[in-house]
Amino acid sequence: MNRIGTHYTASSAGELKGPGRVVFHEALTLTGSEISINELPAGATIPFVHRHKRNEEVYIILEGHGRFHVDGDEFEVGEGTVVRVDPAGARCLKAGDQDAMRYICVQTEAKSLVQFTENDGVALESKPTWLT
Amino acid sequence: MNRIGTHYTASSAGELKGPGRVVFHEALTLTGSEISINELPAGATIPFVHRHKRNEEVYIILEGHGRFHVDGDEFEVGEGTVVRVDPAGARCLKAGDQDAMRYICVQTEAKSLVQFTENDGVALESKPTWLT
Repeated sequence: MNRIGTHYTASSAGELKGPGRVVFHEALTLTGSEISINELPAGATIPFVHRHKRNEEVYIILEGHGRFHVDGDEFEVGEGTVVRVDPAGARCLKAGDQDAMRYICVQTEAKSLVQFTENDGVALESKPTWLT
Repeated sequence: MNRIGTHYTASSAGELKGPGRVVFHEALTLTGSEISINELPAGATIPFVHRHKRNEEVYIILEGHGRFHVDGDEFEVGEGTVVRVDPAGARCLKAGDQDAMRYICVQTEAKSLVQFTENDGVALESKPTWLT
């Protein structure tokens, strides 16, 4: 499923519990982020530590458990854990030995957000069909 | 669980399937996004249409089904559907009548991303304990 409108694009990652990695920047013509859905099989690790030049990363663990490494700190993560890492953070991630870990990774330009939610949203008078 | 390091912050939304809304900007000291996890009970709707002044929004449907409205277009969404909406898009969202819909909403400054993934990441020589 892909839909393209004047002010939106919609795509599908299929079932979120499916295998593999899905990246959305091109499919959705994202301009403020890159968003990916990722899976590490049980016991698998990202094979290197990395940092970023400009981007803040946020990892949202959707299912499974694992271990997160930043700058020598290591800690457990699991469903519902959300981790922000500064560009300079030296990071790595490993799935637990028992089950695959699925997670969303959001990359954004660090310090780029100006305002949000009630300071950025504007309520409109128009209605969807279900509210008319 | 909250952990704060020099270059990271970690927090927990608890079980992602839990009820209610969790916002992460303050808890994680996010600088490039606001990220929230949201639930609409079965049959419930966001009670108004809104646009944004500056922010691109991305909706990631985690579970359930529903209907998405942008600028008069309306379409079905469900687990794995990902929708980008420009600031100007007039948007609303409704859960299906059968079950609650949970979704992540990511707000970012539109057109702020400069580069990403292999163009922004830098592999490092350091190792986590599980790779030494």
